[in-house]
Amino acid sequence: MRLSQYLLPTLKENPAEAQIASHRLMLRAGLIRQEAAGIYAWLPLGLRVLRNVERVVREEMDRAGAVELLMPTLQLAELWRESGRYDAYGPEMLRIRDRHERELLYGPTNEEMVAEIFRACVHSWRNLPMTLYQVQWKFRDEQRPRFGVMRGREFLMKDAYSFDLDEAAARRSYQRMFVAYLRMFARMGLRAIPMRAETGPIGGDLSHEFIVLAQTGESAVYCDKALLQLPVPGEDVDYAGDLSPLIAQWIAPYAATGDVHDAARFEREVPDAQRVLARGIEVGQIFYYGTKYSLPMKAHVTGPDGAERPIHGGCYGVGVSRLLGAIIEASHDEHGIVWPEAVAPYRVGLVNLKVGDARTDAICAMLKDQLAQAGTEVLYDDTDERPGAKFARMDLIGLPWQLIVGPRGLETGTVELKHRASSERRELTAEAVLQALAAQHPFDADQTGRQSP
Amino acid sequence: MRLSQYLLPTLKENPAEAQIASHRLMLRAGLIRQEAAGIYAWLPLGLRVLRNVERVVREEMDRAGAVELLMPTLQLAELWRESGRYDAYGPEMLRIRDRHERELLYGPTNEEMVAEIFRACVHSWRNLPMTLYQVQWKFRDEQRPRFGVMRGREFLMKDAYSFDLDEAAARRSYQRMFVAYLRMFARMGLRAIPMRAETGPIGGDLSHEFIVLAQTGESAVYCDKALLQLPVPGEDVDYAGDLSPLIAQWIAPYAATGDVHDAARFEREVPDAQRVLARGIEVGQIFYYGTKYSLPMKAHVTGPDGAERPIHGGCYGVGVSRLLGAIIEASHDEHGIVWPEAVAPYRVGLVNLKVGDARTDAICAMLKDQLAQAGTEVLYDDTDERPGAKFARMDLIGLPWQLIVGPRGLETGTVELKHRASSERRELTAEAVLQALAAQHPFDADQTGRQSP
Repeated sequence: MRLSQYLLPTLKENPAEAQIASHRLMLRAGLIRQEAAGIYAWLPLGLRVLRNVERVVREEMDRAGAVELLMPTLQLAELWRESGRYDAYGPEMLRIRDRHERELLYGPTNEEMVAEIFRACVHSWRNLPMTLYQVQWKFRDEQRPRFGVMRGREFLMKDAYSFDLDEAAARRSYQRMFVAYLRMFARMGLRAIPMRAETGPIGGDLSHEFIVLAQTGESAVYCDKALLQLPVPGEDVDYAGDLSPLIAQWIAPYAATGDVHDAARFEREVPDAQRVLARGIEVGQIFYYGTKYSLPMKAHVTGPDGAERPIHGGCYGVGVSRLLGAIIEASHDEHGIVWPEAVAPYRVGLVNLKVGDARTDAICAMLKDQLAQAGTEVLYDDTDERPGAKFARMDLIGLPWQLIVGPRGLETGTVELKHRASSERRELTAEAVLQALAAQHPFDADQTGRQSP
Repeated sequence: MRLSQYLLPTLKENPAEAQIASHRLMLRAGLIRQEAAGIYAWLPLGLRVLRNVERVVREEMDRAGAVELLMPTLQLAELWRESGRYDAYGPEMLRIRDRHERELLYGPTNEEMVAEIFRACVHSWRNLPMTLYQVQWKFRDEQRPRFGVMRGREFLMKDAYSFDLDEAAARRSYQRMFVAYLRMFARMGLRAIPMRAETGPIGGDLSHEFIVLAQTGESAVYCDKALLQLPVPGEDVDYAGDLSPLIAQWIAPYAATGDVHDAARFEREVPDAQRVLARGIEVGQIFYYGTKYSLPMKAHVTGPDGAERPIHGGCYGVGVSRLLGAIIEASHDEHGIVWPEAVAPYRVGLVNLKVGDARTDAICAMLKDQLAQAGTEVLYDDTDERPGAKFARMDLIGLPWQLIVGPRGLETGTVELKHRASSERRELTAEAVLQALAAQHPFDADQTGRQSP
């Protein structure tokens, strides 16, 4: 993509309304634009990151055996009356009347609707276990939306729902989602720590929040250092097998957010040198809620014995749009965003230092074409701004690799490759640059040592 | 995907509420489920088709140089007051008040918001031409929603907006979209005919509807047969070049929907043998509206002479969810849907006629794995239902290729490959089947003769 034909309204100054780094950087890097309080448009660069985050979420949901569907944003109020939550839900629920005075609402979550779909479509234990998920826009009418996409009103959420014949099977479904969550956050470059949580208005008796550590996190976090070093399950994790030992590793060490922190236990269980006091951002929460929705909503199946029984359910949320904020909070510096490769909007930013110069133009065109052919996504800065502005913008938008082409380098036959995260730079021939970028880790002599989750 | 673990609630009977074939078949094939009048959930199989349609739309928008962003579903009423459309828009606009009594609406279209984004982000003619697009849910509170997704209330739409310095450049942007539309519909297996249209509430003086011919179409269509035979522009169409001659070919022959049909002109211009009287479904409409929105909303840029001027705009809609209905109307038979390959939810339906038999199970597992490795998407019917029910369901859901594995065939070392569209069947060894399915046209001896648009 040529920057001269792109919509990338970067800002030089920090917007006054943004109090935290991710909000500031998302506005400054031209990722989002506020259209109303807590309601954002996703500009082209931001949308690309959002789609990448979605892709990772989907891949891990699919791998864990969940099946995707898509529910509408608007729901009938009567559906929520069945579960008793229509009146219980507070002013965060956006209530709407259509032209026929029918009561609708903009879904803040979907336990009721998915139970309605399940009860209409599935009748036998033979179809279980079943986990359905969607990635869809939700609305929660926050009293005071703030922190950009971190606490927006219209937000993109992945919500999954499991259906099982009994509690034991439901706990296995819960474990599969637990593992999928560990994997998906790790793939986005995040270390997410599962922490036992209150179930709140969702109900049930088992819940974990997944908390990303970030200096600017919304809540205090206390945990055992062991959790920062545990290996994340690999692609080959056996979702059909017994996941209990794996999960035991993750829930045994102490971990708690400030509101449920037990200082005495923390000091008793965690040796001094192992204690981590940090701040964290919640990026997902999972719940086992048993028959809380299946009983009132009559989501029943016939068991092997021919008798009908209510299914045991769980739900599993990930704040997809919020994740962009969390990733930036966890990965930025004084110059701007530092995108992990898995979610970066483009892998390479190609900077032409002298647009109009036949030689730099030709080399840039060649690099752009060759990289495109190799399947590498490139944002090409072909604007006529001065080099300093181009460098600052590339650092701000945080693409993993910068490829800088100028007349001085070309005199000695080289272009510059810069790694945004480490600021390491190398002068290479165009050929060597293409070869380097074909590797997963362009600056590593040894390409074999690394593993991604 | 294994059918036993999938959510595919097919129906044997025709639902009473469905008056047209596509609505009937979408319900019967388990693609959608109605959640309120004109509001549907997309079940897993339907969602896969929707995503495929979206993919084709995106690829053709990108090819034509449009840039994707994503606007929120909810908008501020005050934005629509700027253009004067808030009061002008009728009861089809869903008006909402949030907890602070702020007036919102669920976007039925996005001319205002995209103009707001453009004026905030783009200030110079150097960034033009620019065409922005999104694929997002819209809401129009139809008085009487009907025909399933063909006239729903919550629907998925691709809407694009072009911004140019003057009318001549804007007309070139219009032409690029015109060509992109021809290509995208053809890739979905549809012959869409552009017809000069009224501009209605969008405004402007130039508009074309794209109409798909289908017996069950909503409106009468009169056109010259030449339009059914014109070659659709190929992948190599030069969007930077002059598209006028190409477009002239498409707009010269007579074509009109019933409401603007000129019978005298039709008879005068089109020879008897060339006259087509048919029915059609509108799947897209494009508009050039000049400065209708840029003037009141002050979407200005600076021209090469340093003077500010309002941009000239156009908008370009495609009913993405509606397209599923249109494709089914154009491609079904008495047994069910016949999906064109480009949008089919899975390419192959693998039917195990005797689940539990070691040999059929093993061959099915092998075929499934080999096809997956070759990148072919397979829906595997591993249920224990009787063969007749399995055949009927496969015909109903309309996957392009059925691969039938039973003990009788295996005795002679063969499986059966059936082409859904032609009903042609061949008995082949497992090896030959894999080889055939690796080709674009498995039953063609000569694989070289066909071209896709």
